[in-house]
Amino acid sequence: MNKTKIGIGFIGFGTVGQGVWKHLQSQREELEERLGVSISFPKIAVRDLKRERGVSVPAETLTLDPMEVVNHPDVNIVCELMGGTTKAKDYTLAALKLGKVVVSANKALIYEFGREIFDAVKEFGGHYYFEASVAGGIPIIKTLREGLVANRFASIAGIINGTCNYILSRMEAEGKSYEEILQDAKKLGYVEADDRLDLDGWDAFHKAVILAFLAHGKWVSERDALVEGIRNVTLEDMHRARDFGYRIKLLGMIRRNFKTGALSLGVYPALIPLDKTLARVDGVYNAIKLSGDVAGTTILIGRGAGQDATSSAVISDIVDAMIGIRDNAHKFLTPSDIDACYRLGESARMATMDEIRSKFYLRISILDEPGTLVGFYSVLAKHGVSVARVVTYEHQGERRGTITLATYPTSEAIMERVVDELKQLPEILTAPLVLRIYEPTRE
Amino acid sequence: MNKTKIGIGFIGFGTVGQGVWKHLQSQREELEERLGVSISFPKIAVRDLKRERGVSVPAETLTLDPMEVVNHPDVNIVCELMGGTTKAKDYTLAALKLGKVVVSANKALIYEFGREIFDAVKEFGGHYYFEASVAGGIPIIKTLREGLVANRFASIAGIINGTCNYILSRMEAEGKSYEEILQDAKKLGYVEADDRLDLDGWDAFHKAVILAFLAHGKWVSERDALVEGIRNVTLEDMHRARDFGYRIKLLGMIRRNFKTGALSLGVYPALIPLDKTLARVDGVYNAIKLSGDVAGTTILIGRGAGQDATSSAVISDIVDAMIGIRDNAHKFLTPSDIDACYRLGESARMATMDEIRSKFYLRISILDEPGTLVGFYSVLAKHGVSVARVVTYEHQGERRGTITLATYPTSEAIMERVVDELKQLPEILTAPLVLRIYEPTRE
Repeated sequence: MNKTKIGIGFIGFGTVGQGVWKHLQSQREELEERLGVSISFPKIAVRDLKRERGVSVPAETLTLDPMEVVNHPDVNIVCELMGGTTKAKDYTLAALKLGKVVVSANKALIYEFGREIFDAVKEFGGHYYFEASVAGGIPIIKTLREGLVANRFASIAGIINGTCNYILSRMEAEGKSYEEILQDAKKLGYVEADDRLDLDGWDAFHKAVILAFLAHGKWVSERDALVEGIRNVTLEDMHRARDFGYRIKLLGMIRRNFKTGALSLGVYPALIPLDKTLARVDGVYNAIKLSGDVAGTTILIGRGAGQDATSSAVISDIVDAMIGIRDNAHKFLTPSDIDACYRLGESARMATMDEIRSKFYLRISILDEPGTLVGFYSVLAKHGVSVARVVTYEHQGERRGTITLATYPTSEAIMERVVDELKQLPEILTAPLVLRIYEPTRE
Repeated sequence: MNKTKIGIGFIGFGTVGQGVWKHLQSQREELEERLGVSISFPKIAVRDLKRERGVSVPAETLTLDPMEVVNHPDVNIVCELMGGTTKAKDYTLAALKLGKVVVSANKALIYEFGREIFDAVKEFGGHYYFEASVAGGIPIIKTLREGLVANRFASIAGIINGTCNYILSRMEAEGKSYEEILQDAKKLGYVEADDRLDLDGWDAFHKAVILAFLAHGKWVSERDALVEGIRNVTLEDMHRARDFGYRIKLLGMIRRNFKTGALSLGVYPALIPLDKTLARVDGVYNAIKLSGDVAGTTILIGRGAGQDATSSAVISDIVDAMIGIRDNAHKFLTPSDIDACYRLGESARMATMDEIRSKFYLRISILDEPGTLVGFYSVLAKHGVSVARVVTYEHQGERRGTITLATYPTSEAIMERVVDELKQLPEILTAPLVLRIYEPTRE
């Protein structure tokens, strides 16, 4: 039997690249037999040739020039694991233009240049795999595109940033402040160098955008989404949330109304009912809840990131890519598949702030004097916001009180006006904290 | 573009068949565009031509003879949804011998004739898809074979019989007896006609065997597995389990020791620690926890059965099959893939009863007289079984007491000897109930 030759090249050879290399080495023989291919690792682009690595790689395969990987005649699968978006885009497009397969974990790149990447796939016949870009230990992209292909998803809710989930879980478990746990998480290397990616929700946003594109065929931009991080969540909010029957998690939320076409995407700290599975996913774990119109609710839980979980996802892509190269036919996200995805998006439009509704949690710092509550409640009443639960308490020795409350469902637009007006009241001491309350449609 | 013609035939057109037909009709145009195929439904074999159905099918496509579906020149995908094993096997093999693709939800058939089916796939070039055979709403087979392909699984634990989970959940929630809830479940049509399949664990066993074959390449037979149903679980056991920190679920358990090669497979009611995700999966939901050596722990939760969840899985198989036919290349469980699976099984052997270890829960009915506990504890001591927790209590007005206890880990072999000796004691009034306690290796 004439075995298909597969050459796997790496651009970027940090933790994940080395993990992929290590596991592929140990499984190589089994994979070769199973798939009827012959695997080699012709070229690896690194930043420093002399650096000590956890795996031992033949010196002659290392190069400083990523284009050597892209252009190497024996490389037909390029693993882009360098991160960043500018150069990564150049190498990705260069490889795709040669009709090669690119495997990537680079969610920021896909968010920024997904359209160009898929256009290049369509034009030049290469292929792009990116299972590792969202929730490494969870095969969410395969599940969305293949396993649950029969479904349309009215709602996709996910805990998709392990760092934030780790910080929030530890704050609550240990009763420590955000700052204290954050410093610890940084020491452990859990926080990206640009910490806004994790802490302000942008990493989760990039992932949510990828899922929204796959599910609904629309690339959602920053200005069309609600993106908030976890910096303003305090231990006090967590305790109050628990009193109200919730836990606070950073949630990525994609909602689609198939009747009106409205699509919304948000990333924000949300209160999740205590008895729901999502509320119980702690630490570095990710979880994604899919509400399909045929299969009903499906929840997937697994490690979000880290060397091994991400390696597992990259290897699954490499296996799919090897089969695609062997059969000269990739199965999913082919040109006609991509076209169909965009066609799906034609019936979608971004929801207005009037259409996006939920219950809200508010924390307000208020002057502690007779009558100050009247103004506050008047603003709520004026906008028709009903209060489901409220706890008001004083701060010993200070002339201020705190109000925490949960509302009945209302719209983002109304809540924005409420907050704007509250800020005008002299008795309101700082800008109110507003969190959304997650209400599962069914489970 | 020359579109590949796909003809989908049905053998058996009950709830699931009609669900598949209905959803495929509504998605047909989208699928045709996306996959570049043209879909038709040439033939449907039913048991009664005149029966009223929830979907309206052209009369001329109906037949009483399943071989008309198999032999129809335009049918290249045969959905075997008739159930049973004897005739279903004949039609399945007949279709495979014609090089056709068979899509099935028939776990009993795969358990009994999986080897013959895969042999026929290898010999005649057809293909067999069976995602719907295990946990409809969870794409577990795709996850095992594709999404988590980089992993070997030391443990797979699953709640994979929705009927038992429904009964146990309701018993606990409503404080009602097994018999009472069972009657209700039967009225609702949740229990298979042959109720031993659900209640004695055989349905879950068939599913566990399929997962074990896919993960470890071994067909496990009845005599090599521990299979127990839920008939002996009482409300009292549930309360006691909760006191001890557990809930009782019917669990399918596949464990593999990669050092010794030992593989074990069991289906039994097990006590699961209250804080674990599996313990919180209720009603008709299924859940499967995979412990992979690369990705770590991944948990999937979804509807186990029912028209829609099963239809969703069947349609995902049909889509894979259509792509395989279009490209003239199926992706997974190809002949070389099947061979590789069996080769994997060569390094596995069934674990002995000495090797299978866990904590145990025991309930014993004992004569309530001075000294009767001595004999009981002597048996445990003789076999080196340590007691972690014990509750002993009397029954008012009766001369008997009940002992419920949780042990430290010991082996199946030792526990069997303990129970045998306990049965010999005159003060032990009925055969002890023995349940296993599930201890996750990591989560």
